[in-house]
Amino acid sequence: MLGRDYTGQNCSIARTLELVGDRWTLLIVRDVSLGRGRFEELAESLGVATNILTERLNRLVDDGIFTREPQAERADRFEYRLTDKGRELKVVLLALMEWGDRNVSPKPPQIARRRDDHSPVTVALVDRHGQQVDPNDIEVVDSVVAGGSR
Amino acid sequence: MLGRDYTGQNCSIARTLELVGDRWTLLIVRDVSLGRGRFEELAESLGVATNILTERLNRLVDDGIFTREPQAERADRFEYRLTDKGRELKVVLLALMEWGDRNVSPKPPQIARRRDDHSPVTVALVDRHGQQVDPNDIEVVDSVVAGGSR
Repeated sequence: MLGRDYTGQNCSIARTLELVGDRWTLLIVRDVSLGRGRFEELAESLGVATNILTERLNRLVDDGIFTREPQAERADRFEYRLTDKGRELKVVLLALMEWGDRNVSPKPPQIARRRDDHSPVTVALVDRHGQQVDPNDIEVVDSVVAGGSR
Repeated sequence: MLGRDYTGQNCSIARTLELVGDRWTLLIVRDVSLGRGRFEELAESLGVATNILTERLNRLVDDGIFTREPQAERADRFEYRLTDKGRELKVVLLALMEWGDRNVSPKPPQIARRRDDHSPVTVALVDRHGQQVDPNDIEVVDSVVAGGSR
């Protein structure tokens, strides 16, 4: 949907938003990552029109973000699960959640934590030594400018 | 635009997507964070219809993500700059960029790096000790379930 002459097209952000850049798509990914993988669960949780839900689910399967699997107890029905590629979107969802916790939610409704010891987990920018970096101390440059090696 | 009976409404992801959940909005934030803060620059970089651009820019100012400032050399013209709240969206943009680098771009077109020593920076999940955590080892729970303290 971006024009051919769109100068910022060669950008992973733009390409990613082509796939997941609408509200419903990211909320569907959120719900499936929370274990709501059935059509009826998603329709009820999101209150989204079923034709929109069907279209977005088909696209998420086509794009390799979800798989469509038979349900354990009813093999004639399906449920959606994240692929590895889909699971990697968790970092995007958690970055959105943290921004919202700080800026638009009066009180964080959910928290992210380690499954083992329940200690809180946050999203951070880290350098190659694992040290956290302030967002103001970074810059984004063309990889050609940076030497092209990565 | 989400229905009132939307059960996942009390969620920072949903609230955040209300503000920035369309493709143009996040691409405008990307461009302004890269220093393209003038209307003409944004219109040219994005190839977006000027009425859409005007509407999104007004909304971003109203939502406290951008400020509208007089240009240094032409005070009768304006440019847009990120507020602190807007700058915090960098982590979201970088999470999208990394996902795209791994999953949809043949070769990372841009890289994020420290401004001082140019060493690469990535987005990671970290625990309270700064240790990185695998996305598969985390869970998201209601803060009430978790004790509500944070």
